[in-house]
Amino acid sequence: MTNEDFMREAIELAKKGMGFTSPNPMVGAVIVRNGEIIGRGYHRKYGDLHAERSAFAYCDENGIDCKGADMYVTLEPCCHHGKQPPCTDAVIEHGIKRVFIGSADPNYVVNGKGVKILREHGIEVIEGILKDECDALNEVFFHYITKGWPFVTVKYAMTLDGKIATRTGESKWITGEEARLDVQRERLRHSAIMVGIGTVLADDPLLTCRLENVRDPIRIICDSNLRIPLESKIVQTAKEVPTIIAMTNYNKGYNDEKRKKRHILEEMGCTVISTKPNPNSVDVYTLMLRLRDMDIDSILVEGGGELIEDMFRRKLVNKVKAYIAPKIFGGRDAKSPVEGTGVKSPDNAYMIENTKIQRIGEDILIEGKVVYK
Amino acid sequence: MTNEDFMREAIELAKKGMGFTSPNPMVGAVIVRNGEIIGRGYHRKYGDLHAERSAFAYCDENGIDCKGADMYVTLEPCCHHGKQPPCTDAVIEHGIKRVFIGSADPNYVVNGKGVKILREHGIEVIEGILKDECDALNEVFFHYITKGWPFVTVKYAMTLDGKIATRTGESKWITGEEARLDVQRERLRHSAIMVGIGTVLADDPLLTCRLENVRDPIRIICDSNLRIPLESKIVQTAKEVPTIIAMTNYNKGYNDEKRKKRHILEEMGCTVISTKPNPNSVDVYTLMLRLRDMDIDSILVEGGGELIEDMFRRKLVNKVKAYIAPKIFGGRDAKSPVEGTGVKSPDNAYMIENTKIQRIGEDILIEGKVVYK
Repeated sequence: MTNEDFMREAIELAKKGMGFTSPNPMVGAVIVRNGEIIGRGYHRKYGDLHAERSAFAYCDENGIDCKGADMYVTLEPCCHHGKQPPCTDAVIEHGIKRVFIGSADPNYVVNGKGVKILREHGIEVIEGILKDECDALNEVFFHYITKGWPFVTVKYAMTLDGKIATRTGESKWITGEEARLDVQRERLRHSAIMVGIGTVLADDPLLTCRLENVRDPIRIICDSNLRIPLESKIVQTAKEVPTIIAMTNYNKGYNDEKRKKRHILEEMGCTVISTKPNPNSVDVYTLMLRLRDMDIDSILVEGGGELIEDMFRRKLVNKVKAYIAPKIFGGRDAKSPVEGTGVKSPDNAYMIENTKIQRIGEDILIEGKVVYK
Repeated sequence: MTNEDFMREAIELAKKGMGFTSPNPMVGAVIVRNGEIIGRGYHRKYGDLHAERSAFAYCDENGIDCKGADMYVTLEPCCHHGKQPPCTDAVIEHGIKRVFIGSADPNYVVNGKGVKILREHGIEVIEGILKDECDALNEVFFHYITKGWPFVTVKYAMTLDGKIATRTGESKWITGEEARLDVQRERLRHSAIMVGIGTVLADDPLLTCRLENVRDPIRIICDSNLRIPLESKIVQTAKEVPTIIAMTNYNKGYNDEKRKKRHILEEMGCTVISTKPNPNSVDVYTLMLRLRDMDIDSILVEGGGELIEDMFRRKLVNKVKAYIAPKIFGGRDAKSPVEGTGVKSPDNAYMIENTKIQRIGEDILIEGKVVYK
C-alpha cells in the first residue's frame, strides 16, 4: 500500500463522523507499521477524542506498541488545549516516527505550529498527502474557521429545461431516488437547512434527515410575516427538532396579532429571530450574522427561488448543487430554481467555478463553487 | 491494426462529407491489403461517387490492384440503380475478398440485399464492425429513410438555473466560444435551421453556418402573421441563402396587406408556405409534412421557447442538445428554453434517454433522445 492508500483509509474513517463533529472538523487517522495498519481512529463527535487520540486509545487498549510506527492523519494535529489536550503531545508520547498529514489546519491557533512542534521533537513530518481530498472533507469547517461565516450550499432539482415544478406547481418527483438520497446526505453534511415560507406553505415539509441513526439539521424558515401555520409539520415537531423562524420586525406590520403568534410559536418550541425592518422579506445578511453567533457553521438552502436569489444577491452562497433530471416540463409559468429580480446583463452573472459533473442514477449532478466579482 | 481501427478510419473519411451528402448518408470506405490501407474513399456530395467507388477510383487511377484485398465500409453497399450504378457490382468486379460492414442499410430497397449479393459472389462479409459509431454517423439519414419524416434536434444554451437570457432579454453570450463552435457544426449536420419570429425580431440573426467552405442550411422562420421585417438580415440575404417563411392563412387575418407582404417576400427570394388556419401560430405538424415533401431530412430548432414547446407537444422533437453554462442569472421574468403551456403533471414530462454528457470548454453539454409515451 502507498502513502495515498493509507491516507484514503484515514479519509474513510473521518467520514464516519459526518453530521456529528460540528463545529469541529471531521478527522481520521491510521497508525502503520511495516506496511500494515495497526490502529485506526476518528473524531466521532464534538467533545469526544480527536482522531489521533482515538487511534492511540485503540492501540493502548489492545496492547499494541506504537513506538517507531507511522501515523497518517487527514488534518494537522492540534497543539492547543481545547476540549481535549493537544494531539501533538500524544503523538510524541507514543514515540511515532513519521507523521503524514493531509490538510494544514486553517485555525490560526494551530496552523503550522503542530507540524513545527512535531519536528522539534525529531519526528519526520510529510505534508500534503491527498491534500485536495482531505480539504474537500472539511470544506465547511475551513470556511467557517477562516471566514467566520457560515458555509452556504444552494441545492435544487430541475428538469433539463430549468423547471423546478410544472405550471400547476407539481414537483413530486423531478429527480429519482438516488438523487433524493444524495440530498439526504447533504442535509447531514450541513448544520442547518433553510427554506422560504413559500416552500412550507406549498409542500408542508418535515425537513429532517431521513438517513438512519443521524441527527437532524436545524430547520430555518424565512417567514417575514409569520405566515407559518401552527398545524404545519415543522411547528408541530419543533420540540423534537431545533427550529428557527426568521421574521421581520417591520414596525407597521408588527401588530398585536403578530406578537401573539410569535409568542405561541415560541411556546411550541420554535426560536423566533427578527431581522431589521424590511417590509417584504427577511434581511438574509442580518440573519446570517445571527446564525453565525449561534455557532451554525453551514446551511443548506433548499428553496424557493426568491430566497435563493436573495442569497445570491447578497453574495452569501458558496456552493451550488444542481440535480438535473433528463426530462422536459416546458411552461412559461413553471417556476425556475432562481427567481427574484435576477441580473440585468450576462456580465453580472454569478459564476460557478471548479464544476464537478456526475451521474446519480438517471439524473445528472452539476456542482461548483460560487465566485463573486 | 484491428478491424475496428480500419473501420474508424472509414468513419473519419465519411465525416468529411458532413453537410454535403443529404439526402444521402455519409459513407466512408478503406481498402486494405496485408494490414495496410491501399485505398481510401468517401461520399463527397449528393450525386457524386459513392464511398466504395470513390476508393476504387483512387486505386484505379494510381494503378493499385485490389484483387484479393479487404474492404471496410461504414454502410452496407447499395445494390440498386440510383444516381450511381450499384456499388456491389464494383466490389465484385474489383475482386475484393472480404467486406467488413458497419451499419446495415435501413433503406428497404437495399437492406440485407447488398450483403446477400456479395455472398452469392463468394465474397466473405463480416457485419456490425463498430455498428454503434457507424449508426450514429447517419442518425439523421436512418430516421428519415425509415420514418419518412425529418429528424428534429432542439438545441439551446442556458445558465445552470435554466435561463436563456437575463430579465432584460440579453443573451450574448451565455456559453463560451467552444460551445458556440459546436452549434455551428450542428448547423452543418442539419439540412435546415428553424426559429420562431420572436427570435428574428429580438436578435436579427443571419442563421448561416460560420464554418469555412461549407454550405448554409436552409433557414425556416415560423412567422404566422408575416411580421418579419423586410430589412432583416434574413430577408436581405434570401437570394443567397435558401429561406422559408411559414405563415398561416387564417382567414380573418389574411388581408390584402398580408397578401402584399407575402408577394414582396417572395420577390426578395423567400419561399412562403402557408399552413392550415390557426390564428396564433404556425401549425408545425402541417409544416413538417410540407418540409418532408421538400426533401428536408433534418431540422435544427434553435428557439424560441414557444416554438420549441409546440414541437414537443406535437411529438416532433427527436433529440435535445442543452448547452449549460456554469453561471446563474436568476430572475422570475427571465426566459427559459421551453415555454408555452407546458405539461400539467411530472408524469407527463417529455423524457430524454441515452443521455450523453460532455464538457465543452467551460460549459457542459447534455444531449439525448426524446422518447414519447
